[in-house]
Amino acid sequence: MSNKGDQISFRPDIKVVDCTVRDGGLVNNFYFEDEFVKHLYHTNIDAGVDYMEFGYKSSKDIFDINKFGKWKFCDESSIREIVGVNDTDLKISVMADVGRTDFKKDIIKKEDSVIDLIRVATYINTIPAAIEMVNYCSQMGYETCVNVMAISTSSESDINIALELLGQSKTDVIYLVDSYGSLYPEQIEKFADQYLKVAEKYNKKIGIHAHNNQQLAFANTIEVARMGVSYLDATMSSLGRGAGNCPMELIMGFLKNPKYKLQAVIEFIENDIMKLKEEGLVWGYDIPYMLTGCLNQHPRSAIQFISDKKVDYGNFYQALLDLE
Amino acid sequence: MSNKGDQISFRPDIKVVDCTVRDGGLVNNFYFEDEFVKHLYHTNIDAGVDYMEFGYKSSKDIFDINKFGKWKFCDESSIREIVGVNDTDLKISVMADVGRTDFKKDIIKKEDSVIDLIRVATYINTIPAAIEMVNYCSQMGYETCVNVMAISTSSESDINIALELLGQSKTDVIYLVDSYGSLYPEQIEKFADQYLKVAEKYNKKIGIHAHNNQQLAFANTIEVARMGVSYLDATMSSLGRGAGNCPMELIMGFLKNPKYKLQAVIEFIENDIMKLKEEGLVWGYDIPYMLTGCLNQHPRSAIQFISDKKVDYGNFYQALLDLE
Repeated sequence: MSNKGDQISFRPDIKVVDCTVRDGGLVNNFYFEDEFVKHLYHTNIDAGVDYMEFGYKSSKDIFDINKFGKWKFCDESSIREIVGVNDTDLKISVMADVGRTDFKKDIIKKEDSVIDLIRVATYINTIPAAIEMVNYCSQMGYETCVNVMAISTSSESDINIALELLGQSKTDVIYLVDSYGSLYPEQIEKFADQYLKVAEKYNKKIGIHAHNNQQLAFANTIEVARMGVSYLDATMSSLGRGAGNCPMELIMGFLKNPKYKLQAVIEFIENDIMKLKEEGLVWGYDIPYMLTGCLNQHPRSAIQFISDKKVDYGNFYQALLDLE
Repeated sequence: MSNKGDQISFRPDIKVVDCTVRDGGLVNNFYFEDEFVKHLYHTNIDAGVDYMEFGYKSSKDIFDINKFGKWKFCDESSIREIVGVNDTDLKISVMADVGRTDFKKDIIKKEDSVIDLIRVATYINTIPAAIEMVNYCSQMGYETCVNVMAISTSSESDINIALELLGQSKTDVIYLVDSYGSLYPEQIEKFADQYLKVAEKYNKKIGIHAHNNQQLAFANTIEVARMGVSYLDATMSSLGRGAGNCPMELIMGFLKNPKYKLQAVIEFIENDIMKLKEEGLVWGYDIPYMLTGCLNQHPRSAIQFISDKKVDYGNFYQALLDLE
């Protein structure tokens, strides 16, 4: 593999995307206190993070606003309550799921919005719908991104077709997503190689969103970064669904660009993340997530097992094997 | 880098070394209950683990036997109480620190011992003493190994001299040890390349012992394994000093040789590791260890910080920077 970076220099094309509220919202149904989100916003500014993702632009017809916190919907007014006009270098991102977003209603013109980047999340079988959405968002004036989820269960040839279609779309960035935290470095390197070839052909950027089921989220992120992947997702102290994501503190400690500051991240963990843990929020590497990751399965059974406060790991493993 | 393995096939030269009691002993001063060690022994047999390291062969002149559990000393009789004559495929290992072992007194002839492998632990400045020890152990009939610690603070040229000397010694295996958990994959790959060249020249095997300060213990272990490193250290649920080691459950889930069984490891964690955690033993990835790893420092200040139950991570980080 060619090496696009080394340990001493830095690549100005690297962009760090904080997904703490968006992926962490999957743990607490998006019920974050405003103070937490405000602290996070200022932490990201101080740390030199490039993008902060506030949550989803979910359809209020599909999801009951009384059953989720406001970051499930990311109303323009909710974001502005935190960021004002966001007169900073930190850009604002939201995610929009294919089939769960009233994008023609809820995504307004960029000139009227404080949002900078819209990331469309799709499975491989809904790529045409994702392209319709991402082209719409691009025409509305936003930076755009398509996150193709759960590729560890898709065939190489299907992924190739999807990448060709995305290459021809208006998206700026295509994300490699290890939804199940199942990919080993040599596997994710092969995917990165495949994605980067398409990126070169169509002048796109590639991003990486990893899950930590096998304690590989950070390793896989920096492995593909040195190959040329440039958008790196991370969350504070890994906060995210199941085993969580690539830890922001490790990315900040690793990157050599002097604009990135670890101190701000460490202090946020000390003050705000520790508080969430004390309040009982549970996420991070644990045996049930390790097992679903290892078996390339969706983490939902592990999330249920841990939520039920079960610890009979041996039985759980056997049940997962039966499912296969 | 050449690829010595892939995701589907397996390499019969891979040896998994369980260091749970030895490295975990650094967390609880080697006070493990016999039942724990017996369960671990049978787990390792069931799981197909190749070596189980019982602890250190420490000098009783230097260390007070009243201040440590028996696995600090690994008397022949202590091991035999667990394993009998060890009529199994699992081999028995002990570690011996240079300068802290009365090796001419305490290391008896192999034909009178149930121990198979003696691993000599050394810093780079005590290589000649390590070679004296390892040659002695080899002459006594044991399989042998030299673990060169803390190489992340040594120069490449010093490491090259050490490797040449070790190449010419009687040791069977030379270990690459990331004592501070500071090495990123591209760094450990360079070391592995350097070690493997010496191994090829002198017909030695190379091993890897990783620490998990930056959640890279597993990733670095499997990265160098695919390059040709064949002795892989791991501990149950990472149990080991500070941030702990490469998790055995992840290695068992990863290796494709059908002799390795994840189920036995999962059940040991469920029954015996969970009990240690409930009793209050603390180890594993945490912000203070991440910071010492990131700064390539010995974890002792992080161990003290956590032992003092402090959580002012921001101040701790600034204090570490002052030390540099």
